[in-house]
Amino acid sequence: MGSFPNIRLQLPLVAFLLELLMIILFGVFVRYDDESDASKPDALTGNSTFLYRYASFQDVHVMVFVGFGFLMTFLQRYGFSAVGFNFLIASFSIQWATLMQGWFHHLKDGKILVGVESLINADFCAASVLIAFGAVLGRTSPVQLLIMAFFQVTIFSVNEYILLNLLEVIDAGGSMTIHCFGGFFGLAVSRVLYRPGLKKSHPKASSVYHSDIFAMIGTLFLWMYWPSFNSAISERGVNQTRAIINTYYTLASCTVTTCILSSLVDERGRINMVHLQNSTLAGAVAVGTAAEMMLTPYGSMIVGLILGTLSTLGYKFITPALEKYLHVQDTCGIHNLHAFPGFCGGIIGAITAAVASEATYGSRLHHTFPSLDKHPGRSLGGFQMAGAVVSLCMGLVGGTLVGFVLKFPIWGAASDEDCYEDEAYWEVPEEEVTLIHTVTRKEQAKEETVAYELEPQIPAH
Amino acid sequence: MGSFPNIRLQLPLVAFLLELLMIILFGVFVRYDDESDASKPDALTGNSTFLYRYASFQDVHVMVFVGFGFLMTFLQRYGFSAVGFNFLIASFSIQWATLMQGWFHHLKDGKILVGVESLINADFCAASVLIAFGAVLGRTSPVQLLIMAFFQVTIFSVNEYILLNLLEVIDAGGSMTIHCFGGFFGLAVSRVLYRPGLKKSHPKASSVYHSDIFAMIGTLFLWMYWPSFNSAISERGVNQTRAIINTYYTLASCTVTTCILSSLVDERGRINMVHLQNSTLAGAVAVGTAAEMMLTPYGSMIVGLILGTLSTLGYKFITPALEKYLHVQDTCGIHNLHAFPGFCGGIIGAITAAVASEATYGSRLHHTFPSLDKHPGRSLGGFQMAGAVVSLCMGLVGGTLVGFVLKFPIWGAASDEDCYEDEAYWEVPEEEVTLIHTVTRKEQAKEETVAYELEPQIPAH
Amino acid sequence: MGSFPNIRLQLPLVAFLLELLMIILFGVFVRYDDESDASKPDALTGNSTFLYRYASFQDVHVMVFVGFGFLMTFLQRYGFSAVGFNFLIASFSIQWATLMQGWFHHLKDGKILVGVESLINADFCAASVLIAFGAVLGRTSPVQLLIMAFFQVTIFSVNEYILLNLLEVIDAGGSMTIHCFGGFFGLAVSRVLYRPGLKKSHPKASSVYHSDIFAMIGTLFLWMYWPSFNSAISERGVNQTRAIINTYYTLASCTVTTCILSSLVDERGRINMVHLQNSTLAGAVAVGTAAEMMLTPYGSMIVGLILGTLSTLGYKFITPALEKYLHVQDTCGIHNLHAFPGFCGGIIGAITAAVASEATYGSRLHHTFPSLDKHPGRSLGGFQMAGAVVSLCMGLVGGTLVGFVLKFPIWGAASDEDCYEDEAYWEVPEEEVTLIHTVTRKEQAKEETVAYELEPQIPAH
Repeated sequence: MGSFPNIRLQLPLVAFLLELLMIILFGVFVRYDDESDASKPDALTGNSTFLYRYASFQDVHVMVFVGFGFLMTFLQRYGFSAVGFNFLIASFSIQWATLMQGWFHHLKDGKILVGVESLINADFCAASVLIAFGAVLGRTSPVQLLIMAFFQVTIFSVNEYILLNLLEVIDAGGSMTIHCFGGFFGLAVSRVLYRPGLKKSHPKASSVYHSDIFAMIGTLFLWMYWPSFNSAISERGVNQTRAIINTYYTLASCTVTTCILSSLVDERGRINMVHLQNSTLAGAVAVGTAAEMMLTPYGSMIVGLILGTLSTLGYKFITPALEKYLHVQDTCGIHNLHAFPGFCGGIIGAITAAVASEATYGSRLHHTFPSLDKHPGRSLGGFQMAGAVVSLCMGLVGGTLVGFVLKFPIWGAASDEDCYEDEAYWEVPEEEVTLIHTVTRKEQAKEETVAYELEPQIPAH
Repeated sequence: MGSFPNIRLQLPLVAFLLELLMIILFGVFVRYDDESDASKPDALTGNSTFLYRYASFQDVHVMVFVGFGFLMTFLQRYGFSAVGFNFLIASFSIQWATLMQGWFHHLKDGKILVGVESLINADFCAASVLIAFGAVLGRTSPVQLLIMAFFQVTIFSVNEYILLNLLEVIDAGGSMTIHCFGGFFGLAVSRVLYRPGLKKSHPKASSVYHSDIFAMIGTLFLWMYWPSFNSAISERGVNQTRAIINTYYTLASCTVTTCILSSLVDERGRINMVHLQNSTLAGAVAVGTAAEMMLTPYGSMIVGLILGTLSTLGYKFITPALEKYLHVQDTCGIHNLHAFPGFCGGIIGAITAAVASEATYGSRLHHTFPSLDKHPGRSLGGFQMAGAVVSLCMGLVGGTLVGFVLKFPIWGAASDEDCYEDEAYWEVPEEEVTLIHTVTRKEQAKEETVAYELEPQIPAH
Repeated sequence: MGSFPNIRLQLPLVAFLLELLMIILFGVFVRYDDESDASKPDALTGNSTFLYRYASFQDVHVMVFVGFGFLMTFLQRYGFSAVGFNFLIASFSIQWATLMQGWFHHLKDGKILVGVESLINADFCAASVLIAFGAVLGRTSPVQLLIMAFFQVTIFSVNEYILLNLLEVIDAGGSMTIHCFGGFFGLAVSRVLYRPGLKKSHPKASSVYHSDIFAMIGTLFLWMYWPSFNSAISERGVNQTRAIINTYYTLASCTVTTCILSSLVDERGRINMVHLQNSTLAGAVAVGTAAEMMLTPYGSMIVGLILGTLSTLGYKFITPALEKYLHVQDTCGIHNLHAFPGFCGGIIGAITAAVASEATYGSRLHHTFPSLDKHPGRSLGGFQMAGAVVSLCMGLVGGTLVGFVLKFPIWGAASDEDCYEDEAYWEVPEEEVTLIHTVTRKEQAKEETVAYELEPQIPAH
């Protein structure tokens, strides 16, 4: 320590140029939509987007800012960065996503019309960036993260356009567009930024007692609000309600399964907080695409059972193997929570779509799969599967390219020894926590004896 | 320490068998209801259950997973277990509750039809299990908790059926079905599992500074969302809104009263975090049954005043007495937050129902008390009171029976000395916290002197 | 230490008298409104206040109790007081606000009719009190805070009446009525209560690592739910949705700007948690008045850019200057988060109102500015500006008067040396945290060496 990076030039400059660009482009392109423009008539009573979407939007908003932010506070000395960089790059990403998604999807007479659904979609896109952040957590500067966000939002929007408009797949909860893409993007970035010096475990790349509890705040808000995430932009009515129900039961089953597997792989049956914090959520990722389909409640629970199993085993076996054999460092294990479960979600969606029929969906088959209107009889499953593969490839290729941009040695990355340490980029209060490493078990035992001897003599004050 | 239990066999086995049973039963019985089945027509605009219930459901969901979970993190070394076991048993309970409640209330042509209201009711039932968990917090293994959840959900559903379908009482906020039943159930379980070895206070059965703040996260989310809890399944319209208003003012008054009493029973007028974390909520428990009645806002505040008083005094005097004289150990003091206030809620509901008349309710008397349709002129108050007594008895008897099941020495319970300690069932990071016990006040004073002497000489780095 | 105040007489007495007064006045005045009274017909389907307001209310409720409460936990030894006193005075304030606002705005046949909107408005008023609390955080007793709340709610309601009913300005998000008034009120109180003994920085008037993370819980819930805050009482329909959109983009831009400025004023470009916790929110305060106007999305972002800049610079330069030259101690820097941004919000609202025309608002100009109905052609901008000035003056004068009431030496204020210390008013667990101050960097370095030497020899247990 002692030679922390100085980013007083880079951070303000890059962030200011990006923010200025946003404001100018908003000035040129962004206008209120019909449900927010004062000069437009109000939506019919009981039918406004606000009524059907706003509560869900707020839930998604909490997932993005508190959920992802606190989930990453598990590191002992990286809490400021986890929650702070999450805050910064999500705030930037939602602006840029409004523009990118607007150009692709909501352009009318050369203007982007924004409403409540724009906010949800912008938050979704930001989630994808935060997933990638999880892979490189502790090893990147905020400048790198802003640049990554800029490019990732751009590529995300292209990929989303390919899936939703060209392949015409459905992906309500974003298994493919958000999780599979974002996850593999992050893993590719991390591969390019590989730091051999961190091969041996870094002393600060682990949790302490309280940081694990902070992380549970993130986990639980993600878990509780995921039914809103997977249904936030579903077609109103039965599809939206079904997406909620499917996600709810998937998560319940996934949580029980995670505890089963976590206990099973420990020599005395203990549960591991890493598993509880992450694998409990994998089912919701994997049910994202199929959530609004007729997956059935027990089908949802089977998804939870499978993903809880695979994700927990992934944390135990795949993450170390990825680092050892493929040189992919993955701080939060996003491979097991987003990348792989997201791809599974694509497969599950493809299977569920392939077996969709009027017997199950009745006259509303076309409401759930609107592409059938234009292309009757198309292979729904095939196109869904293509969407998953495209997302995976776009993530890997995009992440690799962006990784090389981030590798330029001008973005203020910290040295290996200062990784996973808030002091690199934050004013940190003087005391506490560092102390925690310093008392060894031997000293502890000794002091404990002393303490027990002295305690009865201490007068209550 | 050193001989922590090994539950590598029991936990995975019991949890897997239970989860497998859930999936099979869901496969046989559970289907989407009319508002979530793709083949059914949509509800009329502005009239869907989603619109009236979903925001409330999400609030209840937060109460169950973050509210109860974090409220119990107040112990210094039991945060993983508090929030983790809460997560596990709630996730299991909502599945089993869907089935049990479905068989009793939503069976149609041999199938259970689930919708948004099913999720709310399942969460309600899980809350009852979590209440009982509070009594035995720190002294049970996760295997015992899963088994308790299985039986408690079963008995809960029977009791709920007796109250709602046989006695035809109303209990929107669950004072009787959830709190009174769950509270006395937990106390009975704890009585059967009495550990004489813990009679003398365990060194870890208390809070530390940060754990008390974590617990406030739980308290506040419970407190803030309780208006949603008490109104989540009320009849839509005026009843639902009234339940919100009554709960809001009850809680406001209860919080002020709790501070009054807490200060009054301390020798220099300090407030006690235990009271603030718990007694502030007792009013909402006690207003649960009457919340949708014409209790009036000032009536609600009187409920808050009385319960804030009784609950705080309960923590000060009743909880220690229960342990001393009745051998009931009650870690979270659920007697004062759920059991007793829940029974009071039954009484308050009975009184409010007894005085209900068309003068107050107008032509809508039957909307609020639907049992009058079938049984005009029945003693509303008498039946409500019967519901409270039945819930109390079912809780005591059920808890006693289940307690004996949990007493079998095969469920991996920790030894007395390892109680209130996460290391028994969790992989815990190496350092921190344990240290905290070891520095005595005497040493502290000494070191502080040293610190102040040295501080000016430390160069800023 | 050792001579902590004893408030066993004052706190219970003052709080009980106030609570008793509330219950009596509620009994005399408060009744259910038409949407919560059982004898009244239900609102038309899809048109109830519940549907349009309840989710927003719950968001505001979270901001008041968790947002403000946790934002103030940043002090190392004042977390119980921050979250606990916040809880107490907010609970009292919402009761008194219901009465005061009811007398001014909702009196019908001598009765105050309460509904969902009453709860929102009561929470708004409580927010104003909590803002003032931020200025004196750590230096007042709970008795003083209750008395302050009583008078501040009273004066708030008078000021609100002047603005909304006499000047007929609009102020949906309360830039003027809540933030400008509450902020200057708190600064004036703090000026009167000036403690010269705390001129030199108090050792406990700063954060520690974990307390800064707790504070981020407050920041983020305020930030995420602020779109609900600014739209919670907007006219339903396009105005409400527009207020959401404007606040969302203001906050995004303000957060990026705060990081830019925070980095720019540090010698090696680090970000400061104080700025991130507070200045990121300043934009939302300043957009409160104009949120429901046609500010445009890019206009909102410019507001965020300006306020993020001014607020961060305020924390760096104005707060220390206020203390040094004007003897205004401002623990949370509410000058930079509420007082000044609130006044800016008044100005921004005045400008936006001044340029409002039918070209932009169409036939709905009068929906957004209802005062035009009675006074066609009035100077909207002039009246809005008058509202800001009145709020500022009412805050300063009211705060000064109330400050003198609080100065009586009978309210149990702590001595200078016991400021910023929970032990003055709370039962605090014995161990932890105090320790944290005692290990100097020099010792740390030494112990770290020891630890690294010993670590490999410690057997895993």
